[in-house]
Amino acid sequence: MDNTKKVFREIKADAMLTGSPDLRRYLTGFASSFGFVYTDAQESVFFTDPRYAEGARAALKHSYIGVEVAKSEETVLEYIKSKKIKTLAVPMERLTLPAYEALKKRRFRLIDSMPALKAAMCVKGEEELAAVARACRIAEEAYEELLSSLKEGMTENETAGYLEYLMRKHGAEDRSFETIAAFGKNTSVPHHASCGDKLKKGMPVLLDFGCKADGYCSDITRTFLFGESGDDEFKEVYGRVLDAHRIAADKIRAGMTGKEADAFARDHLRQYGLDKFFTHSLGHGIGVNIHEAPRLSASSADVLRDGMVFSIEPGVYFEGKFGIRIEDSVQLAGGVVRSFMQSEKGLTVL
Amino acid sequence: MDNTKKVFREIKADAMLTGSPDLRRYLTGFASSFGFVYTDAQESVFFTDPRYAEGARAALKHSYIGVEVAKSEETVLEYIKSKKIKTLAVPMERLTLPAYEALKKRRFRLIDSMPALKAAMCVKGEEELAAVARACRIAEEAYEELLSSLKEGMTENETAGYLEYLMRKHGAEDRSFETIAAFGKNTSVPHHASCGDKLKKGMPVLLDFGCKADGYCSDITRTFLFGESGDDEFKEVYGRVLDAHRIAADKIRAGMTGKEADAFARDHLRQYGLDKFFTHSLGHGIGVNIHEAPRLSASSADVLRDGMVFSIEPGVYFEGKFGIRIEDSVQLAGGVVRSFMQSEKGLTVL
Repeated sequence: MDNTKKVFREIKADAMLTGSPDLRRYLTGFASSFGFVYTDAQESVFFTDPRYAEGARAALKHSYIGVEVAKSEETVLEYIKSKKIKTLAVPMERLTLPAYEALKKRRFRLIDSMPALKAAMCVKGEEELAAVARACRIAEEAYEELLSSLKEGMTENETAGYLEYLMRKHGAEDRSFETIAAFGKNTSVPHHASCGDKLKKGMPVLLDFGCKADGYCSDITRTFLFGESGDDEFKEVYGRVLDAHRIAADKIRAGMTGKEADAFARDHLRQYGLDKFFTHSLGHGIGVNIHEAPRLSASSADVLRDGMVFSIEPGVYFEGKFGIRIEDSVQLAGGVVRSFMQSEKGLTVL
Repeated sequence: MDNTKKVFREIKADAMLTGSPDLRRYLTGFASSFGFVYTDAQESVFFTDPRYAEGARAALKHSYIGVEVAKSEETVLEYIKSKKIKTLAVPMERLTLPAYEALKKRRFRLIDSMPALKAAMCVKGEEELAAVARACRIAEEAYEELLSSLKEGMTENETAGYLEYLMRKHGAEDRSFETIAAFGKNTSVPHHASCGDKLKKGMPVLLDFGCKADGYCSDITRTFLFGESGDDEFKEVYGRVLDAHRIAADKIRAGMTGKEADAFARDHLRQYGLDKFFTHSLGHGIGVNIHEAPRLSASSADVLRDGMVFSIEPGVYFEGKFGIRIEDSVQLAGGVVRSFMQSEKGLTVL
């Protein structure tokens, strides 16, 4: 997956230099913990250290991107200087102060490459969509297997760790973020940090998880009951959140803003006085990063387009009681939402 | 664990502002994904968003650190401005360009807090040592359990995921870094990315892993044979690496430099012509971060002191054949090395 040309042609600079791991991964399709991607009108070069050089050469053999060994940023900057580059595009918000100063010392005129990178990254190509689909399928296979092995007395930490293991077992490269496993009233904290609390019969369980395949992320949340609780309020609210999810998935269209998308779920919950408990936004873009453009929120002007991949995740949280979130990773195709997910969204009572 | 005063008294500034998650965790003992720690001669305040405020207040109740809600960095900077602070210490290497510009706009005179933070963080107190010890014990319990469940045909990814799960099961908050599981000739790549390769009888296995307990990391590597290989070269080299490890652990003393420490292992390996295959440094400090000061390397002038926690990890790598690394997390106490680890370092043949 060579995205260097796609991004560079949107940038008005002599050359582009990119150092962050996620942006490097996006531009080259190759994962590494150290390196720089250099692109100008004639060439793209991936500078990396000796540890990665062999792997990078093999991975990029059939691409437009050359591979060079560089032990430090200095080597790369000297290379760029030797090419008489004057205007250099860099991802400003990622620059640390020392990196910025190293660039200024060499008198490059700097412009920001981040807008072009964000714009390119949020509209996925075929290969990228296939990778996301695979990451989603693996996450769901792991989830199905987890459901059949959950036992009373398991801790949240253990459950999160086991789900991450199952994703690896089913072929994931890694988790796409730290798994949230919340039991009982812990489900009411949207970003609960999994802890040593134990699973008991009748508890609600919220699992927010995902994995990486070919560098791309999946993101899914399911909330279910570990045995019958007799809690009618939980079941009623579950139905509302599920309807909010389905209404948003049905009504979102290419050309809408993130704000319009968010409103479908929020307006539905408002009819039942539940919107004030929907304390986060409807969704976020997903790609090599678990959070990227577009944002689907009450204030987002991002315009949704075919090829975008994002989450739909309405949630309702009653502090100290319970919380419910139902999340799919979806894409926009042919102007409408297509979910990557197949697992049950109706209330599961284990 | 309130470390704000310990760091602030080493800094010549009116106040100190710290934003990175790991540094925040170190200063307050409280984990959060958003926040700032402000310290001056009169007070320490942890600014965080509403999601963490309740948890932070409970965790910091008996400490010197106050908790305030702040939705953005702007709120925090206005607070500092209102206190007539002129000279502000910030961790320069962590500042992004936008954060730097927000500080300059308010005309603070900036000095670097990073040297004082690094110096404080590398000498651990009792509570910190107890947390590392716990993280080490959990990692070893998980390792013992893994050894009894390894099976032919398991992939590297699956093995890494299962070991991470076992650490969670034994009480870890999370892994301390992405586990390296390497089979066969993959062991010859020091930072191998675990993949779909399968375990076969007679293969060398290298596992580099660790977990977090109370926010502090453990780091351990074991290399073993999955069944008898009849490879005498492997066994011979294993003995050399183990001797290098033991010699370093025996001879390292408080007051030595990282370079002197590194030389014990490197000089031993040189006697057998193996030093050129020892392509990384002997060790690194361990704390809230998996890599911090001191460095134990051929070029390190860091002076080792009682209370420091670091890894001892000599390794030898024959490209395309096999690699061997044997790593313990250790502390300096009473001037000498004490390992946190109890698991077998002699060659294990499963």
